[in-house]
Amino acid sequence: MSYEENSHTDMEKTLLTLKQDIENGFFQEKEKLPSVFELAKNYQVSYETMKEVIQLAVNEDILTRRAGVGVFINSQPIFSSGIEQLRSVTKMIQHAGKTPGTQYVSADIVNPTKYDYQYLRSAETDKIAKIERVRTADGDPVVYCIDKVNQQLLPMSQLHSKHSIFQLLEEHSEMRISYAVAFIEPISYDEKISPILNCQPDQAMLLLKQIHYTESDEPVLFSENYFRPDVFRFYVVRQRT
Amino acid sequence: MSYEENSHTDMEKTLLTLKQDIENGFFQEKEKLPSVFELAKNYQVSYETMKEVIQLAVNEDILTRRAGVGVFINSQPIFSSGIEQLRSVTKMIQHAGKTPGTQYVSADIVNPTKYDYQYLRSAETDKIAKIERVRTADGDPVVYCIDKVNQQLLPMSQLHSKHSIFQLLEEHSEMRISYAVAFIEPISYDEKISPILNCQPDQAMLLLKQIHYTESDEPVLFSENYFRPDVFRFYVVRQRT
Repeated sequence: MSYEENSHTDMEKTLLTLKQDIENGFFQEKEKLPSVFELAKNYQVSYETMKEVIQLAVNEDILTRRAGVGVFINSQPIFSSGIEQLRSVTKMIQHAGKTPGTQYVSADIVNPTKYDYQYLRSAETDKIAKIERVRTADGDPVVYCIDKVNQQLLPMSQLHSKHSIFQLLEEHSEMRISYAVAFIEPISYDEKISPILNCQPDQAMLLLKQIHYTESDEPVLFSENYFRPDVFRFYVVRQRT
Repeated sequence: MSYEENSHTDMEKTLLTLKQDIENGFFQEKEKLPSVFELAKNYQVSYETMKEVIQLAVNEDILTRRAGVGVFINSQPIFSSGIEQLRSVTKMIQHAGKTPGTQYVSADIVNPTKYDYQYLRSAETDKIAKIERVRTADGDPVVYCIDKVNQQLLPMSQLHSKHSIFQLLEEHSEMRISYAVAFIEPISYDEKISPILNCQPDQAMLLLKQIHYTESDEPVLFSENYFRPDVFRFYVVRQRT
């Protein structure tokens, strides 16, 4: 990369103006950005400078380039937090100042799978409550949740409750979830879940497969949460070992 | 899900045998699995039971289903570790008992971008060393690394060194990396990087964007690491807040 000092200053200024224009709603979230040529004319900078500015905004996750389609304005993440902090999805959405909502996909009592034996230490004779829900923030679908819990801990009548499963477990079984072991997986397009979350075909999701434990290290809840990456952003502080 | 007790036992046994057959190399990593019909005949179970077994193995990340193509055997992860532990990629590969290798893509001295100002606190007059490398484990490409460091900290002659950047920074600038703040992003197919890592079009990658700090909280290294998810698996312990 090489550019003159003055075009560098132009770049800085143009990036700032572009950001403000997005914040002020001049360009709308998820909209396609006008062409580089148009933008350069608009912001009174050279074509090359405008291209650089767009690249910087892509680097900063303000814009997304879709091959052969154009450049799009990202929705701003509503939630950015240390992944080592465990909160219910409900709390995460509230914390971002949005109203959490729930659309039930299904709630069933099922036999445990091998997976459940391993993760929930369930016996063969146990029944598992399996709840699939779309979690919304101000009405927008943002997380797809599959939760599995031993049916004894969560009465059938509560499967469609509006309360978080964390809260239901506390109220009905005096089980307080203390921590979770989460496996972090990137997921490319999923035929079922991506369209529900309004994800584009080239948008990956972040899947957290979580085993939730009580203070006495008893696994009580296994959940698979698919997060829209433009809405939820996770970071972690990694200590040198 | 509903099945008889005896087919449940069949399922357990068949899953175990399938796992052993994969471990013993009867089915090879990355190969396509035979049809459900053939497998059922092979393992002497019903078609339905075999379908369940395959689903369980998919759940356990032993197999991957590719829509319209078939079911494939995953390569077993060579590295599974708490994401909050920071090691160099070199150490991660060694830790898994594999021999780390490096293929250089490019090493350049570039002007800092807005991004670098923010993350490396570099001045406008600074030059940035940008190193792009493919990291290999026993010769297989497993991580794509883009590293950026202030050029003053890493002499030009060392840009192609076989040592880890962590080690080079210690030896040449007495800078010991103490921790990193890593942003966790799922990435779908990338036209440049996915083919280099031998990723299938429907395989997502895990990107860690990391700002590395010294003990005195000075940011000295910014890196973007693209991990093949079938090779590296990260988990995190999340504490309830």
